[in-house]
Amino acid sequence: MTTVGIYIWPNMTMLDVLGPHQVLGATPGIEVFTFARTKDPLVTDTGLRILPDHDLDDVPDCDVLLVGGGPNPYPEMQDPKVVATLARLGAGASHVTSVCTGALLLAEAGLLEGYRANTHWSAREILAGYPGVELADGRVVADRNRLTGGGVTAGIDFALTLVGILTDEQTAAFVQLVLEYNPAPPFNTGHPDVAPPEMVAAARALCQQAAPEMFGVAPTPG
Amino acid sequence: MTTVGIYIWPNMTMLDVLGPHQVLGATPGIEVFTFARTKDPLVTDTGLRILPDHDLDDVPDCDVLLVGGGPNPYPEMQDPKVVATLARLGAGASHVTSVCTGALLLAEAGLLEGYRANTHWSAREILAGYPGVELADGRVVADRNRLTGGGVTAGIDFALTLVGILTDEQTAAFVQLVLEYNPAPPFNTGHPDVAPPEMVAAARALCQQAAPEMFGVAPTPG
Repeated sequence: MTTVGIYIWPNMTMLDVLGPHQVLGATPGIEVFTFARTKDPLVTDTGLRILPDHDLDDVPDCDVLLVGGGPNPYPEMQDPKVVATLARLGAGASHVTSVCTGALLLAEAGLLEGYRANTHWSAREILAGYPGVELADGRVVADRNRLTGGGVTAGIDFALTLVGILTDEQTAAFVQLVLEYNPAPPFNTGHPDVAPPEMVAAARALCQQAAPEMFGVAPTPG
Repeated sequence: MTTVGIYIWPNMTMLDVLGPHQVLGATPGIEVFTFARTKDPLVTDTGLRILPDHDLDDVPDCDVLLVGGGPNPYPEMQDPKVVATLARLGAGASHVTSVCTGALLLAEAGLLEGYRANTHWSAREILAGYPGVELADGRVVADRNRLTGGGVTAGIDFALTLVGILTDEQTAAFVQLVLEYNPAPPFNTGHPDVAPPEMVAAARALCQQAAPEMFGVAPTPG
């Protein structure tokens, strides 16, 4: 059995990791669990209440470490126990992975030093600021045993890719069929390369205001 | 404020509704909540533990009713209180919606009679068996105030479409950018129309074995 330990945190963007939880957990031979700072109910950025399976003290070792992101990972990045736990689990894992701004937590734990990686489009400059991290393009970036996804919904493409790595491509393709993953986005605005510039500017401002300390911007009053 | 009430149930496929929870909850002016048979922690088909916000007794009215699916919705479809609650909430809602086999619960509650609708590809014949339900093709099917999505991952396309209906297309396109939704599926197997026939047959058998009473097949021994 391959185990996947998923770090979750308050106010996170849960789809980052719950897309992967669904995809990986639907795969025979893969078992997923969540862990958080405490076992208390954790409220995500849209108000979903999750009960973590483990806290930082009783989280078991895992084959795959997966860290999710959210609008403001800064409090997590500043917590020494969180960072030390991720560093410890990552050192023992066969694969170290993230979706969205979860990459910043991996970087903070030193787990992306010497690797190519990606993150949510709005946080790429922050990720590039970590010594030894080589920013890469791509919705899913693989570099040896590191696998990092872009923002939020990239988690599904990321997870199917990871299933292919952990099992085989036939199994991953089968899971894609069971989960009816033949996406048909209603708009063509899913990436700054294709969205109108003024929409990108507004979205970037929104992201920066969500984590003013991290982006070094003045917080919105009130 | 537009409220979205999401029905969740044990062993469900949580991505059906947590994709929409993320998309809708990220939209200004939309508030989402979950409800279930009881407020006890609910375990999904991949082992995620969710704390429902409401049970069937204290669930408030909502503007949008959303019902998710899973491998075996049959126990839910057989529960008179679940069906009656969905019928009552649906009667008062401005939009009645589902993803995946959640459509079967809507049909059981009489909420799709006289409407075009879709569901997970493996359950289309079951949905078509309900009097007055007209089976429709399409990853997201809109018929007046009914919006039904295909299987699991269709929830994201469904939810962005719903955001466009509840607010405006500009807002929905903005949310798509923030959630970096420019999918790049690693395989071309996300629908029976494109997957190899032997893969489709195996996936169909898996789906049928998950709900033998519903499909009228013999259960797998053991």
